[in-house]
Amino acid sequence: MSVTAALGFRAAGVTAGIKDSGAPDLALVVNRGPSRAAAGVFTSNRVQAAPVRWSRAALADGRLTAVVLNSGGANACTGPGGADDARLMAEHTARAVDGTSDEVAVCSTGLIGVRLPMNRVTDGIAAAADALSSDGGEDAAVAIRTTDSVHKMAVATGDGWTVGGMAKGAGMLAPGLATMLVVLTTDADAGAAVLDAALRDAVRTTFDRVDSDGCMSTNDTVLLLASGASGVTPAAADLAAAVLAVCEDLARQLIGDAEGASKEIEVAVVGAASEADAVEVGRSVARSNLLKCALHGEDPNWGRVLSAVGTTSAVFDPDRLDVAINGVQVCRDGAEGEPRDRADLSGRRITLTVDLRSGDSSAVIRTNDLTAAYVHENSAYSS
Amino acid sequence: MSVTAALGFRAAGVTAGIKDSGAPDLALVVNRGPSRAAAGVFTSNRVQAAPVRWSRAALADGRLTAVVLNSGGANACTGPGGADDARLMAEHTARAVDGTSDEVAVCSTGLIGVRLPMNRVTDGIAAAADALSSDGGEDAAVAIRTTDSVHKMAVATGDGWTVGGMAKGAGMLAPGLATMLVVLTTDADAGAAVLDAALRDAVRTTFDRVDSDGCMSTNDTVLLLASGASGVTPAAADLAAAVLAVCEDLARQLIGDAEGASKEIEVAVVGAASEADAVEVGRSVARSNLLKCALHGEDPNWGRVLSAVGTTSAVFDPDRLDVAINGVQVCRDGAEGEPRDRADLSGRRITLTVDLRSGDSSAVIRTNDLTAAYVHENSAYSS
Repeated sequence: MSVTAALGFRAAGVTAGIKDSGAPDLALVVNRGPSRAAAGVFTSNRVQAAPVRWSRAALADGRLTAVVLNSGGANACTGPGGADDARLMAEHTARAVDGTSDEVAVCSTGLIGVRLPMNRVTDGIAAAADALSSDGGEDAAVAIRTTDSVHKMAVATGDGWTVGGMAKGAGMLAPGLATMLVVLTTDADAGAAVLDAALRDAVRTTFDRVDSDGCMSTNDTVLLLASGASGVTPAAADLAAAVLAVCEDLARQLIGDAEGASKEIEVAVVGAASEADAVEVGRSVARSNLLKCALHGEDPNWGRVLSAVGTTSAVFDPDRLDVAINGVQVCRDGAEGEPRDRADLSGRRITLTVDLRSGDSSAVIRTNDLTAAYVHENSAYSS
Repeated sequence: MSVTAALGFRAAGVTAGIKDSGAPDLALVVNRGPSRAAAGVFTSNRVQAAPVRWSRAALADGRLTAVVLNSGGANACTGPGGADDARLMAEHTARAVDGTSDEVAVCSTGLIGVRLPMNRVTDGIAAAADALSSDGGEDAAVAIRTTDSVHKMAVATGDGWTVGGMAKGAGMLAPGLATMLVVLTTDADAGAAVLDAALRDAVRTTFDRVDSDGCMSTNDTVLLLASGASGVTPAAADLAAAVLAVCEDLARQLIGDAEGASKEIEVAVVGAASEADAVEVGRSVARSNLLKCALHGEDPNWGRVLSAVGTTSAVFDPDRLDVAINGVQVCRDGAEGEPRDRADLSGRRITLTVDLRSGDSSAVIRTNDLTAAYVHENSAYSS
């Protein structure tokens, strides 16, 4: 499982003391090759954390030897000092793994606007380097948790090769990307361009369509590293499918563990004139606080779906909108359909289907309900 | 106060039995003239309630004799039957006040997707017509409440003339418009074009900049009726200023009574390259669930401000953003400024100032915090 499921990778997760809680907070993932090809996708937030700026530059040549990740502090909005800290993290990692700092990606997560305790971080990097092992993937997944209640890992296998990964994320989950740190590894032999295409394609329909709370992070990063250690060069389509499978699995785990959530909601928009329309409508529905409260209360309040659809620029006729909730068509032609009480929302999973009846395109956006627990978790000081 | 503060208007609020609770739920406002000039602004939601469609058409000639309003049901997403119901409400009102139905505006608020109990509604209209009086404004304001904890009224006086108004709204408050029903009246003598300009201008910087929960209603309506009964024709600018004052007062009352809110938050965006930039940034900040939870917990978490600013297309340099919270400059040049603990958030009112340092434009968006009480109120069945 996780980032050491594929051959050629070693990983570790340690307690560096960045978090006051004493929980593990620093992880390393190292690619022992023979290949060092890599790809990455980063937050589209214009306020980008120092590690995002660093990693983006490090990836410019499509090569990564290692990734250093910490929880307990986002190193975002930390000015020139924060940029120095990200660079130092890369340099210390490079020294510990016999690489060069421009092939080290840096990922940080936690509170925005506070500098990292760099003595602890650099000691932690040294400790993690000593602890690196070929079954350290789970420790690494544990060490990147913030408010995550569980660590998140996934794996997919091809014919003689493997794609594995880990993710963290439980809040500030919204498109472009869906707030998180994700590291994927594969022992397939593939060039940076193939990896990049596979990763972008997978992210577009998975992490980018997760919208937990409408809040876009400053630190989102998804990385894919290939060691080539399997000696197999899969067809690009096969590799892409495996990367997609791992991303889908991790995206589901992210929504399943979203802060305070009691319902996992799939908004399926069908009959759209274009995929862009379907995504716009799905996001609008997924961001309706009122709807998310209603679903928390197991109220099939489809009027709140239509009011969200109405705020979009998608092609539709308000008098021809259909909505089904868990298969019960509660709204037909923009008005009441089956009695809403027939929709059973007592389970954890809820599917909303919005039919725009304007074309053949569709998209699925995943979100969760809005709960008092979310409010509680996010109103505590310095969360 | 309210819609009968101006001469020439009569109003009433009665219990028609639309609400199960037995609370007042039907209101009439009647303009006795001599003038019947009127203007209106409606929701920009593309899914529009039947009464919105009706009232928009009724206002096409710039004249209104009466407004009939009900709480207890939105008559939205109710199909052709709902359109019939809105027309019937206008016809019954016209008969009761010796007018014509095409000069009657209809406003409904409550649950979306359910037909109104029309027998009760028409009986209520007759009862309200019997109860009309020149001091019935407060009763009318009470009868349009849904989840409002208080009724909302305001008045401004000119030299021999008056503008008064009432509003309802506590949830589904978001721009374009800010979810609500508002009826303003004046005894000034002014034509429909002057009223329209004054109303649009006032709405643009008041109701349109209230964003309680990011959810846009299907029923938002703001009406302004002029009786001319004062015999005074004020300068257009004076009338506009009075209309603005009443709208500002009511907008503040709306945010002050937002569902579950414990904090009233003013997001002041300054130094913007354009007013549109300032509004975009203000809305983005006002819609951050994470920030609104933090402010609920009295946590001056300015990182959540910057992450919201970063999602906009406004002109700014991430390394030159300044944020002050209640006057304490917690973020300078995109990084930590004064210690965040110095910002005292214990009071009900919080001012966030975001300086984009990119120009001279500004805008203020008003919102509130996100609380467990909001979740509770909106997760109950059929709220």
